[in-house]
Amino acid sequence: MSYKQFYKIIEQNIDALFLNKKNEPIELYEPQKYILSLGGKRLRPMLCLIGNDLFNGNINHAIPASMCVELFHNFSLVHDDILDKAPLRRNKKTIHKKWNTNIAILSGDALMVKAYLELNKSENEHLKLLVQLFSNTAIEVCEGQQEDMNFESKNKVLVDQYEKMIAKKTAVLLACSLKMGAITANANELDAEHLYQFGKNIGIAFQLKDDILDVYSEKELFGKQEAGDIISNKKTFLLLKTLELANPKQLQDLYFWLAQKKFDPIEKIKSIKKIYGKLKIQSIADKEAKKYFEKARFHLEKIKVAKKKKEILLAFAEQLMNRMF
Amino acid sequence: MSYKQFYKIIEQNIDALFLNKKNEPIELYEPQKYILSLGGKRLRPMLCLIGNDLFNGNINHAIPASMCVELFHNFSLVHDDILDKAPLRRNKKTIHKKWNTNIAILSGDALMVKAYLELNKSENEHLKLLVQLFSNTAIEVCEGQQEDMNFESKNKVLVDQYEKMIAKKTAVLLACSLKMGAITANANELDAEHLYQFGKNIGIAFQLKDDILDVYSEKELFGKQEAGDIISNKKTFLLLKTLELANPKQLQDLYFWLAQKKFDPIEKIKSIKKIYGKLKIQSIADKEAKKYFEKARFHLEKIKVAKKKKEILLAFAEQLMNRMF
Repeated sequence: MSYKQFYKIIEQNIDALFLNKKNEPIELYEPQKYILSLGGKRLRPMLCLIGNDLFNGNINHAIPASMCVELFHNFSLVHDDILDKAPLRRNKKTIHKKWNTNIAILSGDALMVKAYLELNKSENEHLKLLVQLFSNTAIEVCEGQQEDMNFESKNKVLVDQYEKMIAKKTAVLLACSLKMGAITANANELDAEHLYQFGKNIGIAFQLKDDILDVYSEKELFGKQEAGDIISNKKTFLLLKTLELANPKQLQDLYFWLAQKKFDPIEKIKSIKKIYGKLKIQSIADKEAKKYFEKARFHLEKIKVAKKKKEILLAFAEQLMNRMF
Repeated sequence: MSYKQFYKIIEQNIDALFLNKKNEPIELYEPQKYILSLGGKRLRPMLCLIGNDLFNGNINHAIPASMCVELFHNFSLVHDDILDKAPLRRNKKTIHKKWNTNIAILSGDALMVKAYLELNKSENEHLKLLVQLFSNTAIEVCEGQQEDMNFESKNKVLVDQYEKMIAKKTAVLLACSLKMGAITANANELDAEHLYQFGKNIGIAFQLKDDILDVYSEKELFGKQEAGDIISNKKTFLLLKTLELANPKQLQDLYFWLAQKKFDPIEKIKSIKKIYGKLKIQSIADKEAKKYFEKARFHLEKIKVAKKKKEILLAFAEQLMNRMF
């Protein structure tokens, strides 16, 4: 089966999630349908089916886990948007804006329970392992989100701490998705763990690319406010690495801009990008992303399955990274 | 084993929940420990162990489910307190007041995941049934909470709708706790379902008693503000039944008080209690609670286990209801 067919299966199963039930009160269910209908790449369920396919599994056995990770991902979007006070998600109103915060909290909670209900449709023999992996991952996602919030008010955050945070907040759910797929195909533990590490390292590389692209991409192509991270003083890899490498004069400049309450955004972006430029931060960040991509490739090579399938997966990952430019 | 010993086992297992791990970031874990340390009757895990004991199960097999329901109950307290903007819980600051709303949302989320992690320690043979029952119950609790919020802004709420809401919001988790215990003791489905219905009906009776006691009890004994429900216009059984039974003059009086923004609380309580008195609302509510208690007893009688054990459980339930006076 092709990846395109996987995508189709996923969309069909998502469409079916809220059928066959009366779904009342509507204030609890409409927000859930809404967030799931905003679309997206369905990356996590894709990875779950791909993980299953890599080991020639029965794809039907991976569908419950694929729905589980997509539901959990959407739960985390709903709650994170409350935490971040975000007004928009994919250019549509966030749930706490379209309805209210109470409804966003509660419909998010229900999405998380539903994630487990879907997971529980897995084959009996896989269930305990899947619930264990998924729950441990979900806890790490919460930890990563809390660490990210902590960083906002922290004076000094090291690049190393930042990478550990993005690993938890973003990368482990991708890794978990792949490994859950592998488990549903009865892959051996060593292969499944290499696949997990592949996903985790790819995930970190993705997030680093994301940091780079916020500053070094055309606004139109990426669909976000250009250099929004600079404007909001977000502690990204670029800023944290710059703080580590900058000389006293550059540090003074940086702290000047970080402290400004009122400023011309164009001027702030220009000034900070100038410092980034002098320190070759873009290139350093690119190398860091590449480092994780190579780590990912190393783990993929270790997996004992047909080379052809691994090549398709690697091409998929590369394509995902490149389409971000 | 006695119920007292069950309680001891539960406290020991709760104490152990957050050991053996580094528990960082502390902003995520301290609130979880805090809410669990506020105490309480541990009613839900007690019911879980009792459900297991009723069918002569291995008590160790019920401990994961008992931790699961207690963690979930605490999760729901944390999020409900945000929704209700409650400043206090058991005379201590609520998490969103002691820390902040973001921390309360996130540590609540983590508590729910932890509930599943504990449940996953159950015996393999019971796991799917337990996850199914628990998740369906958790969804109903969310639905009940949403319905309760909806009622606040709704003009007309029927007593029947109210009872369905409290069944979901409060009673089904008690029912689920008992039935999970029964499942871990390999009870047959019919007996387990009778036990579920016992718990559900007891739960509704509890909530009705709670409504009565808010108005008809000594403040000191019950530890709450007297007639807080009347002051806040809460749509309880008493108010909804009164709205159904009142004559035009009484309705006019009621709506006058419900509409007042500024009022002397003593006067409002006195006036509304006077209408309650004329309609004999306390006695009607008592009869309603008794009706559910009798339904519960009917289901308990149907269960095919030693009469002695059923008597102890019934005495426990009666004691719980009576200590509320």
